[in-house]
Amino acid sequence: MLTYTYNSIGQLRTPYKTLESIPKTFGKRPTAEGVIEVDPAFEEGLLDIDTFSHLLVIVSFHLSTGKPLRVIPPGQSKERGVFATRSPHRPNAIGVLTVELLRREGTKLYVRGVDMVDGTPVLDIKPYLIHFDCRPEAGLGWLAE
Amino acid sequence: MLTYTYNSIGQLRTPYKTLESIPKTFGKRPTAEGVIEVDPAFEEGLLDIDTFSHLLVIVSFHLSTGKPLRVIPPGQSKERGVFATRSPHRPNAIGVLTVELLRREGTKLYVRGVDMVDGTPVLDIKPYLIHFDCRPEAGLGWLAE
Repeated sequence: MLTYTYNSIGQLRTPYKTLESIPKTFGKRPTAEGVIEVDPAFEEGLLDIDTFSHLLVIVSFHLSTGKPLRVIPPGQSKERGVFATRSPHRPNAIGVLTVELLRREGTKLYVRGVDMVDGTPVLDIKPYLIHFDCRPEAGLGWLAE
Repeated sequence: MLTYTYNSIGQLRTPYKTLESIPKTFGKRPTAEGVIEVDPAFEEGLLDIDTFSHLLVIVSFHLSTGKPLRVIPPGQSKERGVFATRSPHRPNAIGVLTVELLRREGTKLYVRGVDMVDGTPVLDIKPYLIHFDCRPEAGLGWLAE
């Protein structure tokens, strides 16, 4: 087992002040708007980011409690392995969010498609690249049951 | 700035023993096969994972050197902000890889689409969900230049 330490590079501002207020849009894209507030120390790293229409945002699920190996997803009754779910409560509480980049203002990235709590720490931002990240042929897994 | 610590849950086995041997398939999907070897302590977390056809794999770019804010991507001449690239050398050396799940054998997940070095530490595995992760309308950003 190897240990890795990361420092947040900014935070995600969203309309959701509590975990409970985040809509569970099962099987639908999140559409809420939010802002990635990047720490000014990292501003140089944003050069040309606004040439992209979509971004991957890597976050820390900082309110995660516990590291269960099995979870019951929201609205479900059956237990699943945590790696077969997007639960924030997982061995390494890291989240991946795909958002549409609406505009950049300095170190603020205005985005659409957030479903995380306001103040979620951001660990990384990457350009969304279709050939790497888009798999329209992907199946639905147990969600199809 | 907030600090988060994660422990690897396994490792990614690939055909690439060195960074230099990884093909730079600019604008194409990686097609090489590999194996996610999950630590047996996490086996329970894999329940039902094989109902999914595709997975997101979160890794540590453990061979990353330095944390530059600007980088020149492979085959390019112009410097870009690191957050506008998929460079492994970045403030938080975390990678996101989308793979096709071919089959599961116990704690081994046989996958297609790896472009990372053999032995890359795995931090998390998630099901790839089209509504969250697939954006066929995404633009190419500076790659279109």
